[in-house]
Amino acid sequence: MRLAELSARSGVSTATIKYYLREGLLHPGRRVTATQAEYDEGHLRRLRLVRALIQVGGIPVASAREVLAALQDGDLDRNERLGSAVWALPHGPAPDDDDPATEVGRRTADALLDRLDWSYRPASEAPAAPAYGMLVTAIATLSRLGYPCSVRDLEPYGRAVERMAVTDLDLVERYGTPEEQVEAAVALTVLYEPVLLSLRRLAQAEESRRRFGGK
Amino acid sequence: MRLAELSARSGVSTATIKYYLREGLLHPGRRVTATQAEYDEGHLRRLRLVRALIQVGGIPVASAREVLAALQDGDLDRNERLGSAVWALPHGPAPDDDDPATEVGRRTADALLDRLDWSYRPASEAPAAPAYGMLVTAIATLSRLGYPCSVRDLEPYGRAVERMAVTDLDLVERYGTPEEQVEAAVALTVLYEPVLLSLRRLAQAEESRRRFGGK
Repeated sequence: MRLAELSARSGVSTATIKYYLREGLLHPGRRVTATQAEYDEGHLRRLRLVRALIQVGGIPVASAREVLAALQDGDLDRNERLGSAVWALPHGPAPDDDDPATEVGRRTADALLDRLDWSYRPASEAPAAPAYGMLVTAIATLSRLGYPCSVRDLEPYGRAVERMAVTDLDLVERYGTPEEQVEAAVALTVLYEPVLLSLRRLAQAEESRRRFGGK
Repeated sequence: MRLAELSARSGVSTATIKYYLREGLLHPGRRVTATQAEYDEGHLRRLRLVRALIQVGGIPVASAREVLAALQDGDLDRNERLGSAVWALPHGPAPDDDDPATEVGRRTADALLDRLDWSYRPASEAPAAPAYGMLVTAIATLSRLGYPCSVRDLEPYGRAVERMAVTDLDLVERYGTPEEQVEAAVALTVLYEPVLLSLRRLAQAEESRRRFGGK
């Protein structure tokens, strides 16, 4: 398909597509004349992923480029490609080692991973996974703000996301090729976050009404 | 306690505390001399909540003021105060009624609420809860970007957050007074979001390793 059709089918303006091409977020089309190129379904899918990352995930162009580079790294297997792509997503502020609460966060996060019996151990991998850093920062912040949480408090959340990850990966495995699966995994990680957070607030309202509701 | 102690115990600089006082995010202390005021544990707690909202939640000062006003509205019962405070949190872009995907989002969200048998029904409440709008936008975006999702796909996430909301409210009920509970509910809603999202990414890595991992 030509640029105009790619724009119509993706809902992304031709100016934005040209910008993504210049920035290396979208691979060039197959040149057919001096001024025209031909695009395929792979371009359309990639364009959707770029929009998911940038417009929904609010991810800066440079990080999006890193995520996409990881997806295409032919030296990695599917699990490694997926891991590297998710690593390149933004994870908020890294743990602040000058803050004494960070030590609490790290100890609690490590004990939680032990309790959940997940195979990831920060001590055996360097650098640590950014999602681990995000967890340490979050627990440190809770502690610093006067809402300390224990492994016992956190375990039910770990069990809940464990089941959720099975559902997540089942969704991903519906896509045909490993390449499509890795793209879907990154897109669904980002796009399901607002689904989860909004459903959690509705579920809290439901539970609050049940416990504290008037009448 | 005096301003200096409030600052030391909360970790918030005196300049920032004065700014929050001017902006009405913190109620004035009890004036003891022309230039000095006395603050109490209520100020300390409120200051922690303000930091959770603004620094962690990235919530604008004006919205934080709305959240705090809802917490203090003596005409509302505990469930209503909690609901209004969570409503005042930012929920991302509202559904775009000019986008045909929004209709899909709304239909799917309504069918999901039916399936989950939650009591909230957007048709019977106006304006609709912002978390409902956030859910509609999220489903519409998935559909527009070529990742349509059905009620069957979403139901497991609904069930997971349902169980999570019970844990959330159990944590909240540990706090003594209804006022502290409502404050804790808002703080924990915001502060547990990065805990959840980071744990989900770690759980996905775990599940991906299990399914696709080499060796």
